[in-house]
Amino acid sequence: MNERPIGVFDSGVGGLTVFKALEAALPDESMVYLGDTARVPYGTKSPETVARYAREAAHFLARQRVKLLVVACNSASSVGLEALTAEVDFPVVGVIRPGAKAAVELTDSGRIGVIGTRATIDSHAYTHAIRELRPDAEIVSQACPLFVPLAEEGWTHDDVTYRVAERYLTAFEGVEVDAVVLGCTHYPLLKDVIGQTLGSAVRLVDSAESVAAEVAAMLHGDSSLSAEGTPRTADHHFFVTDVPGPFQVVAERFLGRRIERLERASIEGE
Amino acid sequence: MNERPIGVFDSGVGGLTVFKALEAALPDESMVYLGDTARVPYGTKSPETVARYAREAAHFLARQRVKLLVVACNSASSVGLEALTAEVDFPVVGVIRPGAKAAVELTDSGRIGVIGTRATIDSHAYTHAIRELRPDAEIVSQACPLFVPLAEEGWTHDDVTYRVAERYLTAFEGVEVDAVVLGCTHYPLLKDVIGQTLGSAVRLVDSAESVAAEVAAMLHGDSSLSAEGTPRTADHHFFVTDVPGPFQVVAERFLGRRIERLERASIEGE
Repeated sequence: MNERPIGVFDSGVGGLTVFKALEAALPDESMVYLGDTARVPYGTKSPETVARYAREAAHFLARQRVKLLVVACNSASSVGLEALTAEVDFPVVGVIRPGAKAAVELTDSGRIGVIGTRATIDSHAYTHAIRELRPDAEIVSQACPLFVPLAEEGWTHDDVTYRVAERYLTAFEGVEVDAVVLGCTHYPLLKDVIGQTLGSAVRLVDSAESVAAEVAAMLHGDSSLSAEGTPRTADHHFFVTDVPGPFQVVAERFLGRRIERLERASIEGE
Repeated sequence: MNERPIGVFDSGVGGLTVFKALEAALPDESMVYLGDTARVPYGTKSPETVARYAREAAHFLARQRVKLLVVACNSASSVGLEALTAEVDFPVVGVIRPGAKAAVELTDSGRIGVIGTRATIDSHAYTHAIRELRPDAEIVSQACPLFVPLAEEGWTHDDVTYRVAERYLTAFEGVEVDAVVLGCTHYPLLKDVIGQTLGSAVRLVDSAESVAAEVAAMLHGDSSLSAEGTPRTADHHFFVTDVPGPFQVVAERFLGRRIERLERASIEGE
C-alpha cells in the first residue's frame, strides 16, 4: 500500500480530462494536478523547450512526493519520457502509448488517423507507438493548430469550427481510416464537430480512459494503491503557474464541483 | 551621440513589424531584438505574469546595454510600463500611446474601435490612452483571440478568417467607428480581411510607424542618436528564448533578407 498522491501534469487545463478519468477509475487515490498555465501552450514550441518544461514539472511534483507521474499533455508526452523517467524515482506514464493501444484495439482495417498539435504530430510519437503494437498499420497524421484556440474560445459547436475541421480532416479523405486518435487533451471538447465531419463509421480515440486503466494496472501491479475507503476528492491538490482564477472557473465547470485546494506554484528552474 | 543599440522586445515574432518600421525610420541605429518564443503568447496570460516576463526581458536587454527599450508587444505594453521604467536606467516606449495618438489623429467622428488580445482589451489601456488625448472619444473594444492563431496558421486571406472577422467585428455595428486600432502586432497580417470586413470608410491604425516616430523624436530630443553613416543592418542582433530555427524562417521572410546574428537566450529569472 502507498498513500502518496498521483501526480498529473499538463500544460494547462486540458489534462483535467485525464484527471477526471483517473478520479473515476481510482476513487481511493489522492492526486496533485499541475497546470503550467504561465507557459501554455506547449504544442507550438520546440521539443527541447517542452522537454525542459516537463522536467521542471516532474521535479516540482517530486517535491510533492507523488508515487507516480501522469504526463497528461500529448505534446510533453511525445518528446521523450525516457529521459524524464531517468531523472525521478517514480514511474512516469504518458498519454501516447495508452492512446495508441486504444486505437489499435478499436480499428478493424488497421487504417488509423492521428490528429494533434504541431509538436505532437512532428514528433511521430503516435506513429511509432501504433507501429510497435501493429506493424502493418497504415497511419495518417494531421496537425490541427486551430483546434485548441477554437476550443478555448468556446466555439465547440460553431459553424466556423465545422469549416476548420473540414479543412484539416480532408487529410483522411480516400484513406478510409476507421479510428482517429484525439491526440490533444483539448480535442474531446470538439468531439461532436470532429465526429460529424469524419462520419459515424470512424471511431474517435480519447486516451483519458486508457491512461486511467494503465495507471490502475501499474499501481495494482506494484502493490502501490492507496487503502480502500472513502473517496479522496477533498484531498486533491491543484497547482498552476499563472494566477489561479481562470483555471478555477474552467476546472469547477468541468469537474462539476468546487475546488478547494488551488495554489500558484513557481516551477521555472526547478 | 550614443552608439548603444535600441532594444526591441516582443512575446514572439510579431514585434518584427515594429522592428521594420524602426529600421526604416532610423537606419543609422543598431538594434537588439528579443522574442520570448518559449513563453509566447502573452495575450492569454494574467497581467502579473506578463509584467514579470516583461521585467525579465528588460533586465536581459539592460545587459545588452540598450539605450532605449521598445516594448513592441501590445499585451506587455498594456500591463504597466511605469513599473518597468522604474527598474531600468533607460527610457521605455510601449505601443499603446503611439497607437492611441495615431487613432486620435485619424478619426473624424471621435468614434474609435480597438481590437486586441484578451489581455490587452481587459487592461483598458487603449481606452485610457485615447481618452487622455481626446476625452470625448467614444471607444468600443473587442478581444479577437482567434486572430493570432489564424495569422500564425497563414490563413491571412482565408474564407474561415473572413467569417471569424465578421463575428468579432459585429461589435462595431451601429457605432460607426471611423478608425480601428490594430492592437496586436499580428493583426497587420490580417489587414485585408479586417479592412474588407469593416469597409473602406474605416481607417486601420497600425502603431508601428507611430512608435518609430516617437522613438526617433525621443532619441533626437535626448541627443542620443547614433552617428550618421552607413546603415547598421548587419549590426542588428536577434535573441529568442526557444530554438532559433522557426523564428529565423519567419523573420527572414518578413524582413526579406538573411539574418546573421541570431541566438537563443535564457531570460527566466533575470
